[in-house]
Amino acid sequence: MTNTINSIPDIRRRRFLTSAALGVAAASVAQTGSAAIAANPGAAPGRTEPFWGVHQGGIATPIQRHTYFIAFDLITTRREDVIRLLRVWTDASALMTGGPAHFDLKADHNQASIESGATIGLDAARLTMTFGFGASLFEKDGVDRFGLAARRPEALLDLPRFSGDQLDPQRTGGDLSVQACADDPQVVEYAVRRLAKLASGIAVMRWAQMGFTGGFKHGETPRNQMGFKDGTMNVSTDDPVAANKFIWVGNEGPVWLRGGSYMIIRPIRISLEHWDDMNTAFQEETVGRKKISGAPIGKQHESDTLDLDATDKNGNLRTAENSHAAMSAPESNDGAQILRRAFSYDNGIAKISERWPPWRQLMTFDAGLLFQCYQRDPRTGFIKLFTKMAQVDMLNQFTTHVGSGLFACPPGAKQGEFIGQQLFG
Amino acid sequence: MTNTINSIPDIRRRRFLTSAALGVAAASVAQTGSAAIAANPGAAPGRTEPFWGVHQGGIATPIQRHTYFIAFDLITTRREDVIRLLRVWTDASALMTGGPAHFDLKADHNQASIESGATIGLDAARLTMTFGFGASLFEKDGVDRFGLAARRPEALLDLPRFSGDQLDPQRTGGDLSVQACADDPQVVEYAVRRLAKLASGIAVMRWAQMGFTGGFKHGETPRNQMGFKDGTMNVSTDDPVAANKFIWVGNEGPVWLRGGSYMIIRPIRISLEHWDDMNTAFQEETVGRKKISGAPIGKQHESDTLDLDATDKNGNLRTAENSHAAMSAPESNDGAQILRRAFSYDNGIAKISERWPPWRQLMTFDAGLLFQCYQRDPRTGFIKLFTKMAQVDMLNQFTTHVGSGLFACPPGAKQGEFIGQQLFG
Repeated sequence: MTNTINSIPDIRRRRFLTSAALGVAAASVAQTGSAAIAANPGAAPGRTEPFWGVHQGGIATPIQRHTYFIAFDLITTRREDVIRLLRVWTDASALMTGGPAHFDLKADHNQASIESGATIGLDAARLTMTFGFGASLFEKDGVDRFGLAARRPEALLDLPRFSGDQLDPQRTGGDLSVQACADDPQVVEYAVRRLAKLASGIAVMRWAQMGFTGGFKHGETPRNQMGFKDGTMNVSTDDPVAANKFIWVGNEGPVWLRGGSYMIIRPIRISLEHWDDMNTAFQEETVGRKKISGAPIGKQHESDTLDLDATDKNGNLRTAENSHAAMSAPESNDGAQILRRAFSYDNGIAKISERWPPWRQLMTFDAGLLFQCYQRDPRTGFIKLFTKMAQVDMLNQFTTHVGSGLFACPPGAKQGEFIGQQLFG
Repeated sequence: MTNTINSIPDIRRRRFLTSAALGVAAASVAQTGSAAIAANPGAAPGRTEPFWGVHQGGIATPIQRHTYFIAFDLITTRREDVIRLLRVWTDASALMTGGPAHFDLKADHNQASIESGATIGLDAARLTMTFGFGASLFEKDGVDRFGLAARRPEALLDLPRFSGDQLDPQRTGGDLSVQACADDPQVVEYAVRRLAKLASGIAVMRWAQMGFTGGFKHGETPRNQMGFKDGTMNVSTDDPVAANKFIWVGNEGPVWLRGGSYMIIRPIRISLEHWDDMNTAFQEETVGRKKISGAPIGKQHESDTLDLDATDKNGNLRTAENSHAAMSAPESNDGAQILRRAFSYDNGIAKISERWPPWRQLMTFDAGLLFQCYQRDPRTGFIKLFTKMAQVDMLNQFTTHVGSGLFACPPGAKQGEFIGQQLFG
């Protein structure tokens, strides 16, 4: 990266210097006259997830309690601004995930504070930061804004319209995705705000959604808002063979993306009131598993094999063919698998108009699943799995996909690099 | 309460029986044919807050990590429906706060599930449920719907319009308020959904807002999104003299409300981006305290006395007269104090139009403070404090009150009673 600092307005220049200096010795920072960096006063760095590495954090990382997803659109036309943004984002993320350090407010009292200070006293809470590139980064409205069009991977396609999609443009797409995950809601909000601030003048926020998981014990499959265990058949991130097969982009992908992954995110509104009106037997038939145990229908344990051909004493299939479990099983999809990493979201309540008799207008929960999955290739992952599910999965009568994004998440960075560096190399 | 069950449609009747039976022996429940109640499978009841008692939980309770506030409007015209609703809400709340028990789904497989089951496997996470009555419960559009108009306390007034108020009717008011607070977001959502379901046909949801706090250590003053410690001067709930003086309604109030409190809730949107652009010195002047330490300006420690007459070497007041700390100090308000119990909220981002040059339209964080306070009388509490603050507090340039509610929260109930029982006695 060449020095292009001169084009940045003064205040942003100071911020950039500060961020760029994070990797160097404190003494050197002091000499530049920029804000000194202070470790979080009074907080232990404990509970950290590694930032630098072969893969980005937040993908194979055991899921945290909270997330803040945000998509940005670039407003700059300059390639070097994008590079600069990725570098300051990388440096700030490395700092924050290491046990939130803060600009020393006392040492540079009259500088714009840049960040809120809202996590002074908190630890890192296993913060991870995960970045992705949308198709529009490579080409938008036919324009190759940043000289990247030739580097767009085939697999970073425009997602097809799926049956039932009711996508809100304000919850869809984006040039860049940023996702903070941590065990503390204040930590994820802080991280996103800080990165949004660093993007000032280069990128604007397009859409965002917080999410959460319940405090289930480590090793247990968490339940989502529908009350069923969610993720029983997930790809094991502990199994490198499975992870390489299903999650990480290999030699079939461009060099800059190998060791990365394709991420799909979809806020899925769930008609919770409607779901809660169903009896448990119907819910279990719909999901294709038992509610309390998570076992396949007719089995005892969550880990029991899902046998899609098993019949009851009347010769009927125990697991309905159009149940969610049957539709999503690898054996129904030529072995396709994805890494699900879903959170719940809840934006309170909102007015909706029912599309069924008696066509009431009423307040319902604006809540559901912040569905998210990682895969080696969306064509053999989510698209393969979801195209038929979107048409006939029994669960669809309770769910509406209201937003969507597909992002190519580059591999992790080595210390001193920035996330996505090889794309611009 | 007389038996008015016959008027309830079948499915609601079964629910009501179930809920009403929670206090009696399990054998008796089984005999009625209703769903049996099972303790949460696999979960210890640990980390519970008491439900029955002199005061409702969630007021003097040490603040939890998550909240779900929701206001309801009654759609019934029958007083006995309101009574019935309060009883089933009370019974369900007692059950849930005790370490979430669930309807035994296996035992009554074909019954509407009523609740999601989303917390099976979770513990109570210090769940509290707090209920309040809005002025409209007593009289709405001049109609005394439930024979309660004569019992409306003088202090349950219609809040005046404060300077700067930009209240959204869909985030304001309500006949009944319900607030779940717990250390787990899935637990608070579960609790609210369950109560909303139990209200079916009697009350509809009017507005709702989730909130959170950061994981600050017990005994520390938490920081809010502005990065400053929030609540340094709060009323001590450990001091019964102060609590009785400032929080709990005494003999001046109606019998049914003694031991209760008036709650005001206001979602306050904060221009976080604007705030983060200010330098720390200006932020500290605005707040009237130091950012990192929380100390008064010119002092060292958070607990140091706030001396509003202290001057610097040039003879200027150290704490600006229109700083937030000075404006809200008891000595500026004839000794008035309130119990603040505020959370942060974050609904992602939303489009706004700036009201200042260059009048940009842009996406900003839809986030801020879910301000909440309890007081013995709103006239000597929030109204007394906020009327002048709304006009001149320097913090106002960063904040907009977008919703509002005032609710009379009755005292706690003894086992077998329901919350608010004396109002209907």
